[in-house]
Amino acid sequence: MNYKIAVIPGDGIGPEIVGVSTKVLDKIAEKFDHTFDYTEVLAGGVAIDACDNPLPQETVDICLASDAVLLGALGGPKWDNLPGDKRPEAGLLGLRKSLGLYANLRPAILYQELKDACPLKPEIIGDELDMMVVRELTGGIYFGEKGRDGDFAAWDIMKYSRPEVLRIARTAFTIAMKRNKKVTNVDKANVLEVSRFWRSIVIEVSKDFPEVELNHLYVDNAAMQLVINPKQFDVIVTGNLFGDILSDEASMITGSIGMLPSASMADGKFGMFEPIHGSAPDIAGQDKANPIATIVSVAMMLRYSLDLIEEADAIEAAVKKTLARGYRTGDIYTEGTTLVGTIEMGQRVMENL
Amino acid sequence: MNYKIAVIPGDGIGPEIVGVSTKVLDKIAEKFDHTFDYTEVLAGGVAIDACDNPLPQETVDICLASDAVLLGALGGPKWDNLPGDKRPEAGLLGLRKSLGLYANLRPAILYQELKDACPLKPEIIGDELDMMVVRELTGGIYFGEKGRDGDFAAWDIMKYSRPEVLRIARTAFTIAMKRNKKVTNVDKANVLEVSRFWRSIVIEVSKDFPEVELNHLYVDNAAMQLVINPKQFDVIVTGNLFGDILSDEASMITGSIGMLPSASMADGKFGMFEPIHGSAPDIAGQDKANPIATIVSVAMMLRYSLDLIEEADAIEAAVKKTLARGYRTGDIYTEGTTLVGTIEMGQRVMENL
Ligand SMILES: CC(C)[C@H](C(=O)O)[C@@H](O)C(=O)O
Ligand SMILES: CC(C)[C@H](C(=O)O)[C@@H](O)C(=O)O
Repeated sequence: MNYKIAVIPGDGIGPEIVGVSTKVLDKIAEKFDHTFDYTEVLAGGVAIDACDNPLPQETVDICLASDAVLLGALGGPKWDNLPGDKRPEAGLLGLRKSLGLYANLRPAILYQELKDACPLKPEIIGDELDMMVVRELTGGIYFGEKGRDGDFAAWDIMKYSRPEVLRIARTAFTIAMKRNKKVTNVDKANVLEVSRFWRSIVIEVSKDFPEVELNHLYVDNAAMQLVINPKQFDVIVTGNLFGDILSDEASMITGSIGMLPSASMADGKFGMFEPIHGSAPDIAGQDKANPIATIVSVAMMLRYSLDLIEEADAIEAAVKKTLARGYRTGDIYTEGTTLVGTIEMGQRVMENL
Repeated sequence: MNYKIAVIPGDGIGPEIVGVSTKVLDKIAEKFDHTFDYTEVLAGGVAIDACDNPLPQETVDICLASDAVLLGALGGPKWDNLPGDKRPEAGLLGLRKSLGLYANLRPAILYQELKDACPLKPEIIGDELDMMVVRELTGGIYFGEKGRDGDFAAWDIMKYSRPEVLRIARTAFTIAMKRNKKVTNVDKANVLEVSRFWRSIVIEVSKDFPEVELNHLYVDNAAMQLVINPKQFDVIVTGNLFGDILSDEASMITGSIGMLPSASMADGKFGMFEPIHGSAPDIAGQDKANPIATIVSVAMMLRYSLDLIEEADAIEAAVKKTLARGYRTGDIYTEGTTLVGTIEMGQRVMENL
């Protein structure tokens, strides 16, 4: 088969990690007899530099004409002092909105080989951790009306509509059906009207998934439970702002934050795939960045957008083998392992494919 | 001196822990020659049961006529299915608003004797942890306009005005001056207009405190930093919703959550003091609850509202001595220590006064 992939290398280490990851994908193409056609497009800081716009319309058009989007990382201090709508973040938020990527899937997985990097005590984290945060990505306070009352006040509206909650809840329950059949809804229903509304719709959707156990946590409690008892979670479903906070917290407790992928899905199969880490401008261009989060984001792309399950499994297995053989980039290096650069890490993964 | 204290025992274990704590305060009165006049008032579940209102006006009036308020805990499953404005939480939010308690001070301290209960690895938490979360408590999305668009959508407004931010920022910098002179402002200025406004005012206030170092974190990053590097924090200042999440997360990483007090301050010296834990209805009335969080809340009351510093120090020292001597309630019991009930724990603290 022939697949069209829009590629957004972005800023900082973006081009390096994306470069290595498309090489891995080429190897998959060879092995499984597919063709991946890449179209490179601009967003974020490089787009600001090139055309004074963090998200050129051409980028949106090419993404929409593709089967999936692979993104490196956007942003960096160079563009941090621009006005809000001119900053790299505006490119990212614009991509999510204009591509309709309403469901952000954030697996938080503990890599066995990196268990020692986990900040939690072994008796809390145990041998394994595997949860999925499903974050609503195109609504809520991120995209609500906002404004100022002169110099006196400023405000943002956190709003959710019925169809917005219905579809993200369905996504969460559908994912839970393929996992351990447990959904934890996180909101602040004891204070927020939008949360009471959200929760009632999640409960409504749960009726269509009688096999899935549903419970509810207030967001403050969820932030605590992630630290004290993360193993209780299978799928967490929550809104855009709470999801931003909790998905990052969940990643951090795995200790594997440099290794974690994400998928941002639209209706149907279309999605954008990216590592959860940032653009790390301090090590850009030095062959130091860890490409694994991007490589496993490519695996997610194969699995979720292209329905190439065997191919996705192959990449994930190759990554695990590479780690088991002791290859480490600087960020995950420990004594007794073998330090490699971005490019060599990619080669090692390809060897194990 | 003669001090008027409004006492709100509340629900669940509230009456027990407050009962023990006022006994400790009586001992202070005796030792230091003060008089504390207590007036017990209703709020939360017991107020709903007694007069169908989680916050009777009489309670507000008596609190306002007092020098400080001591609160046990509000709420419980019994009242969880009432409509929003009839629930115990409405009593708590109403108290904060009607008493003008805009500055919530949440110390997150690691008790040396309970270090083993910390969920983080020793190399992360180190020997000591002592930070203060300053949470805005009467504004933001908790008290913004809210509503529904029929059955189609629901919304809440997160809004801050200039005077609201000015006063909480001043509180945070003033506290930092008495501590390690570092303030971390937490917001989501890369997305929210209210955060950009908030941040600009915090920066403005920082000019009046040139000795205090100020830095800024986005809330998602702050949630991660608390887990991976909590020792970087001295004072965190943030809005009502982010403060709700981060203050609970900060408490949890100390492992001493059953031991932590809080102060909610109005302009001037008036404040309400309460443990951060809940009403624990499952152990209510069994002499099992840990009264220490409430006892140290009394110490905060002496320190912040009544300016009785020596007296506050005495209570805190007595609590530490009691722990050092090995007395533990069930929640913090470990092998080799001495299990005691609520009342005996209070007596042991008094012995050490
Ligand atoms: C960069 C920022 C706007 C973004 C967000 O808040 O969504 C980021 O934190 C993320 O989670 O992808
Ligand atoms: C009970 C609830 C309304 C309250 C809050 O969200 O403020 C609680 O979580 C707290 O932090 O005191």
